[in-house]
Amino acid sequence: MKALGKHLLLELKGCDKEVLNDVGFLREALLAAAGGARATVLGESFHQFSPQGVSGVVIIAESHLCIHTWPEYGYAAADIFTCGNSVRPEKAAEIIVRKLGSKDHSIIEMRRGILDT
Amino acid sequence: MKALGKHLLLELKGCDKEVLNDVGFLREALLAAAGGARATVLGESFHQFSPQGVSGVVIIAESHLCIHTWPEYGYAAADIFTCGNSVRPEKAAEIIVRKLGSKDHSIIEMRRGILDT
Repeated sequence: MKALGKHLLLELKGCDKEVLNDVGFLREALLAAAGGARATVLGESFHQFSPQGVSGVVIIAESHLCIHTWPEYGYAAADIFTCGNSVRPEKAAEIIVRKLGSKDHSIIEMRRGILDT
Repeated sequence: MKALGKHLLLELKGCDKEVLNDVGFLREALLAAAGGARATVLGESFHQFSPQGVSGVVIIAESHLCIHTWPEYGYAAADIFTCGNSVRPEKAAEIIVRKLGSKDHSIIEMRRGILDT
């Protein structure tokens, strides 16, 4: 069963709360994850919220990575959506989990674009 | 069971192929969807691929909307990730399905950030 895209949904609990509110750190983490996945970065958009929280997206030639954080709960949701066989989304997931210091994480894999053809 | 975020994963088949390769149209469609959802747009990043295909993300104060298209298959994957009770993600989904002219779509809802607290 062939799918056009692989989509990893990361639930990241028990993260380092300071890190979750540091937009510069999170930007570097997502770019490092994209690099680790051997993805080609095309664009990005990051936002720091007040009083806390960060949202960020990195568009890659192979789709995207994104993150939304809730420092008050030590929680972040991250998504890694890739297509093609040249990238390593699991490596990106590993980097994000480690950089956020998550003590309790889960990853759901969704296959996107399962076509009849 | 309270969740911090609601994440809709749209599988859009049987779409208008010309529309799926029109970055300007898709940008307007995602912004219209964000507006329909009563979300606050903070940033965006859209890319046209060669020979075909578009990727785009709109960051909103309530999380993000994104789309990846495969015109050659008449297929698009779209995600609508929102938090809070002031937004209407289902309305955004309805707008995207309609604007892409999808004749065969499905929507999966994932709840993100289900915490013990």
